[in-house]
Amino acid sequence: MPERRVVIVGGGLVGSLAACYFAKRGWAVDLFEKRPDIRRPEHSSLAEHRSINLAISERGLSALRRLDPALEARVKELVIPMHGRMIHALNGQQSSQRYDVFGKHINSVGRATLIRLLLDEAAGYPGVTLHFCHEFLHADFDAGQAVFGDLARAGERVAVDADLIVGADGAFSRVRQRMLSKGTMNYSQTYIEHGYCEFSMAPRHGDFALDPNHLHIWPRGTFMLIALPNPDRTFTCTLFMPWTQFHALGADGDIVPFFRAHFPDALRLMGEDKVRAEYAAHPKGSLMYVKCSPHTYTNRAVLLGDAAHAMVPFYGQGMNCGFEDVESLDRIMTRILREAGKADNRTAALTGEQLRRALDEYSATRSVDTSAIVDLALENYVEMRAKVVDYAYLARKHLEGLLHRLFPRQVIPLYTMVSFTSIPYAQVIRKWNRQTLWLHRSIKTTAIAAAVGGAMLLMRLLGWPVQPLRSLARMAAGQA
Amino acid sequence: MPERRVVIVGGGLVGSLAACYFAKRGWAVDLFEKRPDIRRPEHSSLAEHRSINLAISERGLSALRRLDPALEARVKELVIPMHGRMIHALNGQQSSQRYDVFGKHINSVGRATLIRLLLDEAAGYPGVTLHFCHEFLHADFDAGQAVFGDLARAGERVAVDADLIVGADGAFSRVRQRMLSKGTMNYSQTYIEHGYCEFSMAPRHGDFALDPNHLHIWPRGTFMLIALPNPDRTFTCTLFMPWTQFHALGADGDIVPFFRAHFPDALRLMGEDKVRAEYAAHPKGSLMYVKCSPHTYTNRAVLLGDAAHAMVPFYGQGMNCGFEDVESLDRIMTRILREAGKADNRTAALTGEQLRRALDEYSATRSVDTSAIVDLALENYVEMRAKVVDYAYLARKHLEGLLHRLFPRQVIPLYTMVSFTSIPYAQVIRKWNRQTLWLHRSIKTTAIAAAVGGAMLLMRLLGWPVQPLRSLARMAAGQA
Repeated sequence: MPERRVVIVGGGLVGSLAACYFAKRGWAVDLFEKRPDIRRPEHSSLAEHRSINLAISERGLSALRRLDPALEARVKELVIPMHGRMIHALNGQQSSQRYDVFGKHINSVGRATLIRLLLDEAAGYPGVTLHFCHEFLHADFDAGQAVFGDLARAGERVAVDADLIVGADGAFSRVRQRMLSKGTMNYSQTYIEHGYCEFSMAPRHGDFALDPNHLHIWPRGTFMLIALPNPDRTFTCTLFMPWTQFHALGADGDIVPFFRAHFPDALRLMGEDKVRAEYAAHPKGSLMYVKCSPHTYTNRAVLLGDAAHAMVPFYGQGMNCGFEDVESLDRIMTRILREAGKADNRTAALTGEQLRRALDEYSATRSVDTSAIVDLALENYVEMRAKVVDYAYLARKHLEGLLHRLFPRQVIPLYTMVSFTSIPYAQVIRKWNRQTLWLHRSIKTTAIAAAVGGAMLLMRLLGWPVQPLRSLARMAAGQA
Repeated sequence: MPERRVVIVGGGLVGSLAACYFAKRGWAVDLFEKRPDIRRPEHSSLAEHRSINLAISERGLSALRRLDPALEARVKELVIPMHGRMIHALNGQQSSQRYDVFGKHINSVGRATLIRLLLDEAAGYPGVTLHFCHEFLHADFDAGQAVFGDLARAGERVAVDADLIVGADGAFSRVRQRMLSKGTMNYSQTYIEHGYCEFSMAPRHGDFALDPNHLHIWPRGTFMLIALPNPDRTFTCTLFMPWTQFHALGADGDIVPFFRAHFPDALRLMGEDKVRAEYAAHPKGSLMYVKCSPHTYTNRAVLLGDAAHAMVPFYGQGMNCGFEDVESLDRIMTRILREAGKADNRTAALTGEQLRRALDEYSATRSVDTSAIVDLALENYVEMRAKVVDYAYLARKHLEGLLHRLFPRQVIPLYTMVSFTSIPYAQVIRKWNRQTLWLHRSIKTTAIAAAVGGAMLLMRLLGWPVQPLRSLARMAAGQA
């Protein structure tokens, strides 16, 4: 029997994009979202619930492009390009570190704006029904049934049949919880020892208070402040810090002296009273990451986005990875249909067996790649809060930038591979490790060559025989 | 307000021991178990549900002893001592590897026998109520309430108030699941790529078919068969093997040629027809391990046993570690009361604040120790299926045994520390790492000394000067 009906749990960024993709394939789509429709004016405030800024880059854009190039173009009109990091020293000095030698950039974008746009897009496809205020309660994957509570009707139970159930319900996914209790899934969730608190920076004289085309960082070793631009000319600032430091400040402690000591320039721009008030009022958030494998349950269910791989926000890849999930699953379905000789491989229905193959293949490759980006995101925290002011780090970055300019396909900096290509994440790590090895060897060889060259020059000047040194140099180069 | 009422979820080994400990402290105890009372003859067959044999060793015995030395003595009468491993070579040759140079041993014991004994023990304390056929449904830890479904009355809901809720409900703990959805718990569950299948070996001529005072192993590198003795003179045999190999044999494939090729002696003792029939009939089990941290939720809930640290069975420490959990929590409570100046520190009620301190301290130390034994259990699989026939491994084992005999407190083999002491597991690993380093250095120094000594002797015989070599040896020894 061909597979045609999908239930998507979660109407966030990834859920609504998935709805578009399945609808374009000709599936009947029922999307269920617990919250009300944030496109309606009376609910718009709900959209600001989560506010860590988003940065969309190549992987996210690629998924929009594959769905519809016009959609990508529309999103690009809503973003603020960020060409690099702006590092703020303690004395207020700012220095720009470009993301890419060829000028590629990431893009600050509002979460709510993007969700509204994708929900509109999904609603525009025939066969898509959006159900708001519906809470996922339960699923019998084998029977192909999901049960929701209709919150607008006192939680009345609604059972829906589907060939496939998509869990796009975020880091604390209840679909995943259901899958965990069903099968043999490897799973881990880990909270890091740091938390965060958000602040805002108002415009100054009607304009951005800082250069809007940078991601601003105040790196202070064990903690940092960052700021990302919003279209309304404000910045959202986020303080990331060990919980021990939050606790040391005390629940109702004054944050202002802390800001004065570590972020004096930001404090001036934000205003002491506002910083004090926001620190008291805003929640202190936890940071956790999730890995699981498989991402699927037979041919009946699949987890997409944060539900499968919640990550810390430090690589700006959470949404991009989630969008790539959707594109990746779609590509696999298309290929399987093509291999089966279907001419209309972008819309033909998959048999149950084909769907199982698609999900198996998706999970096998994707769980490795998502595990890789979860790790990279964690490592990038150290880069942002400490390494960006480290000389050895900067030297390597410059050298790599230079080499990338000379050999754009052979040497690609890590950040470029992650943000500006669609090289699978796991392959990014492998390539990066090879590059690191090669680079270290080259540096060693160059250093030896320089030392030997200098010594030979000196010996020639002194009129000593250089032959033994030459042999030694050859040996050393062979070992380097 | 003093804390006096505990709800224990799970009436297995750890839950029933915990019931005894809390009752002895003067707490009112309600223990809820999903299954019927296996002490009643009509339900006795249920007890055989899980059959991987148990081996009780020092940590488990210590927890029984602290509760009541007479209980330990009664358990010791029910066990079959196993003094070592009996390694079965392919040609049928058997070689014994003792567990301990001083004759210490582990003890095979029946799971159902032990549960019955502990349930009887718990029921004997005033203030203990056992509720069978009650399924845990839900808990509000902050409100101190747990809700159960009474399976004997069509699932009728029963709400119970308690100062403390203990989750002793095993590897797939629902109490843990509830804690996961409440707080910020680090959690991982991992399935290993191997599965298992059980067989039985009947008595021969009315007696054990193999030496009953050994744990029998047929180590075959990537897989193994083991056999543990039962009081009825049978052996329970378990085949541990990669899933890929199980699949290669096929769902209804004939296991007999496989046994003939790898375990011919066991096959003769077990009988071809029985092996074939049992392989077809018995389920193929998964092997998984769990780590979580914290083990507690404020002063309201605590996980004990497999619920907190399910592990693979290869170190025989699952139950022992669970019993040690109970003893460890009890010791912390006693110490906190003693520090508070309570004379009756083994029965005084704890204040809410004291209970919180006790649980915090328990979780902080115990989660590190349980993580360590989970890792050790995993590593011991490789030891059992491969290393026990490795010469380097055996050489080290002999050397360590010798050193342990000479310096019983300074050098302790790993197996001895885990099975025959109560050294905290994490400390066991640290001690073992130090010992390994020290041993490697000693061996290196000895080897250098022997080589130099030999060379000096030779040089003296030849009449050459030995001074340069002496300096060299001094240098080398300094570096070794």
